[in-house]
Amino acid sequence: MEFLGGRPLNILIAPSGFKESLGPESVADAIEAGVRKVVKEDAAFVRKIPLHDGGEGFCRAFVSAQGGEIMEYMVTGPIGCAVKSHLGFVGEDGKTAVMDMAAAAGLRLVPKDLRDPTITTTYGVGELMKTALDHGCTKIIIGCGDSGTSDGGAGMLQALGVRLLDVEGEELPKAGGVQIEAVCNVKNVLCGPKGVARIYGPQKGATPEQVELLAAALERLAHVAGQNLKADISTIPGSGASGGLGAGLMLIGAYMRPRSDAVNEYFKLDRVFHTQWDFVITAEGSLDSQSTEGKMTTEVARRAKRHGAQVVALAGTIGEGADVCYGAGIKAFTSIQQGPLSLEKAIEETERLIKTEAENMLRMIMVGLTLRKRQA
Amino acid sequence: MEFLGGRPLNILIAPSGFKESLGPESVADAIEAGVRKVVKEDAAFVRKIPLHDGGEGFCRAFVSAQGGEIMEYMVTGPIGCAVKSHLGFVGEDGKTAVMDMAAAAGLRLVPKDLRDPTITTTYGVGELMKTALDHGCTKIIIGCGDSGTSDGGAGMLQALGVRLLDVEGEELPKAGGVQIEAVCNVKNVLCGPKGVARIYGPQKGATPEQVELLAAALERLAHVAGQNLKADISTIPGSGASGGLGAGLMLIGAYMRPRSDAVNEYFKLDRVFHTQWDFVITAEGSLDSQSTEGKMTTEVARRAKRHGAQVVALAGTIGEGADVCYGAGIKAFTSIQQGPLSLEKAIEETERLIKTEAENMLRMIMVGLTLRKRQA
Repeated sequence: MEFLGGRPLNILIAPSGFKESLGPESVADAIEAGVRKVVKEDAAFVRKIPLHDGGEGFCRAFVSAQGGEIMEYMVTGPIGCAVKSHLGFVGEDGKTAVMDMAAAAGLRLVPKDLRDPTITTTYGVGELMKTALDHGCTKIIIGCGDSGTSDGGAGMLQALGVRLLDVEGEELPKAGGVQIEAVCNVKNVLCGPKGVARIYGPQKGATPEQVELLAAALERLAHVAGQNLKADISTIPGSGASGGLGAGLMLIGAYMRPRSDAVNEYFKLDRVFHTQWDFVITAEGSLDSQSTEGKMTTEVARRAKRHGAQVVALAGTIGEGADVCYGAGIKAFTSIQQGPLSLEKAIEETERLIKTEAENMLRMIMVGLTLRKRQA
Repeated sequence: MEFLGGRPLNILIAPSGFKESLGPESVADAIEAGVRKVVKEDAAFVRKIPLHDGGEGFCRAFVSAQGGEIMEYMVTGPIGCAVKSHLGFVGEDGKTAVMDMAAAAGLRLVPKDLRDPTITTTYGVGELMKTALDHGCTKIIIGCGDSGTSDGGAGMLQALGVRLLDVEGEELPKAGGVQIEAVCNVKNVLCGPKGVARIYGPQKGATPEQVELLAAALERLAHVAGQNLKADISTIPGSGASGGLGAGLMLIGAYMRPRSDAVNEYFKLDRVFHTQWDFVITAEGSLDSQSTEGKMTTEVARRAKRHGAQVVALAGTIGEGADVCYGAGIKAFTSIQQGPLSLEKAIEETERLIKTEAENMLRMIMVGLTLRKRQA
């Protein structure tokens, strides 16, 4: 079966993970399985590039892309109990540590009935960093995303032995000589109406009262930090990353790196587009008015658009304002849901749903393709 | 905007209604609204043919297509309370009555908390028929579908003054001289494992015990009727229509007419395909393994296939075994759901969901259409 003037279709599958349900590798596999029900090996060339955005799985994906070693450590989890975490050692001398904050303080590590971001802590993140320092690392790359915390990085600072909130004006120790790179969504800011407490607090389990409490605490952090840094960090890009961990990291001299930039370097995203793709299938848990705010799917869409490839997207939920995605280069999107279903059930069945809708979607594209062919 | 060698697209919108939520006219309007968000007047010609299958709305659609008069009557509803119903008078002499059983005994007339098909009755159907006879009608066309009853037509017979279940072997009065045409899904049979009690009882509110009770009652009806008709009607095509109303109508000499055949005549479906459609958008509440069993959407798909038009379908739910639709000529389908949602909410929002997914679907088809263009 041949579709385009005698050559097979070139399809790139580049999805993000579905939060709390399926990692990007599994999402890519499910999409491929659905696609393959419609176009067989001889009709389409398919390549999979699972997208990591600094969130859960960032460290393992990094090591798998760049080479290196993963070591496991027990650290203090977000609710105070010990959790199994890990650290990657990469680079020629193995002196660059890579980690994702979610492996020590991720939302998935907070049981549903204990989701109270006024309590959860990034202490384990600091412990991992300390471990990296103990190994003599000269650079630490920290993926920020999928956090279960809103402590402004206070726990992390505490674990590193930094006293902050109770001592105004005291000089902060910098992580002398060690370069810290925080890979984050720079659109996330610490304070204000679009501050991290208000935008992400509720999905971490905060009640409206707790959201206000968190917002006030983070404002105080900004105030104290501002005195230390002689700069107002309250709305600095990335300060709100991972429940304000970004701000905490800034305090010890971290560089906030836009994740699209980092991912492009570490996972060689631009190089993927040296191939001429007919279309790109991306996917994300939710597409809505925030989807263009530094999310990986729209990053891919922007690149694809530059290279003249059309992008289609699957999502668990198509929310309010998803139309903004068209502006970012996504040509069409559809939800994976196949009927009325509870959120809980939908999360349980994500893999099957993605596979089914990938098939439906490809069939729909084929209708357009055949239309054109019939006419030609 | 031009898509196909300088001419606009020809799109036929031919959906069924969504049970208990939206009639076929409203479904067609919603699809059109979604389609028009993607292709404007100059880019596509759109025609709407709402599909009536003998279920709710059949009478009004019939009169609107063929001309005639609608008269309203109060009849005994399915739960015994009076309901406002109606009857159409059509034909040159106005002596043909048309009705849908759902207007006197439909599921929508049974409040959710009173759904007990061991109690609901088709008495009102008989009353409507009696009214038609009183008007001197020589033909009665009865649309069967969307019933809230499983009484085997016992209520209808009772209203017509026919005593049946308590007198075995007694000669049944035929509706002398009057031609009765039951427009129905002839795949529905009265008894056996695929009998109407087992297939439709649960969705009418029957518990598993009540399903068995109903199945036994309908078997007894088949037995009694068999003695009268000197024929076994238990699995005769259409005997199970509208909770066995089909069997009751057979007892008074009705002709069971396949609805695809009737709809084709009354709504001139074949004539619609004299136009060369690029694609046809159909829709239905649910697509599943039963979708090819005499449903209007697959009827349309079969016709479209004969005429070389591609068919795509929207559904509230894509259920198990929906793949059978491909065999019937549906090229691609997708659910209107945009995220996890309860059935109740989904029913409430059907109109918006259909509009949104019609847009999504059209965009997806356009991806395929422009794919070929780029390469050409």
